[in-house]
Amino acid sequence: MTMQPEPGQADVPLVSVDLPATEEEAPVLNVDTEALLERLEEEDGLGRRTWVIAEGYIPSESTGPAPAMTSHETACILNTGERAAEIEITLYFSDREPAGPYRVRVEARRTLHLRFNDFESPEPVPRDTDYASVFRSNVPVVIQHTRLDSRQPPHALLSTVAWNE
Amino acid sequence: MTMQPEPGQADVPLVSVDLPATEEEAPVLNVDTEALLERLEEEDGLGRRTWVIAEGYIPSESTGPAPAMTSHETACILNTGERAAEIEITLYFSDREPAGPYRVRVEARRTLHLRFNDFESPEPVPRDTDYASVFRSNVPVVIQHTRLDSRQPPHALLSTVAWNE
Amino acid sequence: MTMQPEPGQADVPLVSVDLPATEEEAPVLNVDTEALLERLEEEDGLGRRTWVIAEGYIPSESTGPAPAMTSHETACILNTGERAAEIEITLYFSDREPAGPYRVRVEARRTLHLRFNDFESPEPVPRDTDYASVFRSNVPVVIQHTRLDSRQPPHALLSTVAWNE
Amino acid sequence: MTMQPEPGQADVPLVSVDLPATEEEAPVLNVDTEALLERLEEEDGLGRRTWVIAEGYIPSESTGPAPAMTSHETACILNTGERAAEIEITLYFSDREPAGPYRVRVEARRTLHLRFNDFESPEPVPRDTDYASVFRSNVPVVIQHTRLDSRQPPHALLSTVAWNE
Repeated sequence: MTMQPEPGQADVPLVSVDLPATEEEAPVLNVDTEALLERLEEEDGLGRRTWVIAEGYIPSESTGPAPAMTSHETACILNTGERAAEIEITLYFSDREPAGPYRVRVEARRTLHLRFNDFESPEPVPRDTDYASVFRSNVPVVIQHTRLDSRQPPHALLSTVAWNE
Repeated sequence: MTMQPEPGQADVPLVSVDLPATEEEAPVLNVDTEALLERLEEEDGLGRRTWVIAEGYIPSESTGPAPAMTSHETACILNTGERAAEIEITLYFSDREPAGPYRVRVEARRTLHLRFNDFESPEPVPRDTDYASVFRSNVPVVIQHTRLDSRQPPHALLSTVAWNE
Repeated sequence: MTMQPEPGQADVPLVSVDLPATEEEAPVLNVDTEALLERLEEEDGLGRRTWVIAEGYIPSESTGPAPAMTSHETACILNTGERAAEIEITLYFSDREPAGPYRVRVEARRTLHLRFNDFESPEPVPRDTDYASVFRSNVPVVIQHTRLDSRQPPHALLSTVAWNE
Repeated sequence: MTMQPEPGQADVPLVSVDLPATEEEAPVLNVDTEALLERLEEEDGLGRRTWVIAEGYIPSESTGPAPAMTSHETACILNTGERAAEIEITLYFSDREPAGPYRVRVEARRTLHLRFNDFESPEPVPRDTDYASVFRSNVPVVIQHTRLDSRQPPHALLSTVAWNE
């Protein structure tokens, strides 16, 4: 899963330029589109591009030391691929139009445990409010949802793999 | 995902009426059925039409301030589509015939975190009783199941994406 | 989803007997196999026939009033179909051969929230022991897994839809 | 699901040797490749070969008696097949390259509830650190994820079937 050509591949460039014989001619760009797409797919990691978390609720109250014990909702995102994941998130509510898109980047071969509590732009996530979220990524990722709820000590936990298609 | 025609579509109406030349003739209704179905599908959101939550149990006891800390079971429903979701819910029990259908509506681009505790018609959900539920929607939705259980303080949580087909 | 024939079906019996003209002849049993299979499929409910719960652990300790607060693991089974589900369960362990089959029946249009704590034959489920379980049903069902863990007060909960194929 | 031939199979060996007529000739090995592959597939158990757990976090703090109440993350693996599962695990982090592969073996017809806390080689799992994990098995298995979190007494639990493809 790296960009380095395997033995025997080096003499078949994905992109090349034919230099013109005279100055009047423009150079010609040759792109092996099919091979390029194939190479990009090989770099893809595990998962899907669209994920849905229908549950969402950040309690305004917390007990215990911050930030570990602050009541929070998290989307644990894993990008096992060779390209950074650019993800757009839309939040849905019960009584108003959706908010977003929020944008987040997960580098190649990295996980990001993203707290909804930290969303700021275009607007923070309101507390004590039902919401839901949709994630759309340019490359496959896997998303698991978790809430730590410390309204009363000690905390309660929930988790589920998000719905994907 | 809106009903507004894209450029170049305006002159191909989905529904039109040919006015009669004489008063004896009835006007003719022209429906481009295929295009209409296609347009409706474009308005569909993410998810599936059938969902099952095999676990169900509302404890009669609660501790902590109502309604947030009242022991409850919730179906978090997300409708990302452009049409309202009309959903029929049937409840199954261990020792009697199913109850329902219960009917609920989730507007376009909205989420509804529906508490089973609030079901009233055709009958409330009995407490301290095992049950299960099936959701059938006219448009795709995503459903996630959650229980907050506050029989003893503090509360416990569980959650899972419902089974869908 | 009932066995009562719809209008117009009554004169096409799935099974009939041609009575012999003379006593020497045996009566002939006519079975419309294809229609019979189709009818049976119509009676099928939602779900799958094979389910797996890889997690299993019943703590021997509990706090709080029995049986509600006894530490327990549950398989919530829903049979939405028109035929009773006959289910065989096999338990797997870390250091010995599997146990079972355990047999359980879930009537048509019923849910059974089955506690592993109550398994008796061929043998009870050992406490404080890692196990896993496989469910094989003759008709489609949906299974969700739950643990209530009351080793320390108050209790903790976990739940997930079982893996199915 | 055993290797013992069923009645009528004994005279169709999967592998046989034709002995040479003279000493100059080499013996010929006959392999019924197709039947052999089929036999191996019959020995496969339920599940998939690739599993992802996007959530991972082992709290460094615990309360209650060890090891049962030590805060831990577990991958519950079930191998229902007739061949041992050889599994490679890779861990992903938020700010460094992946660690692994870790190797674990789950014998035929066994479950292994594997604690990430016990990982040692090539390196232990850091505490209080976000991570994620990918499991690749040579045979189908089912994996369910669980965390017991006892940072504050009593403990909280979460669980979900891992994502699979």
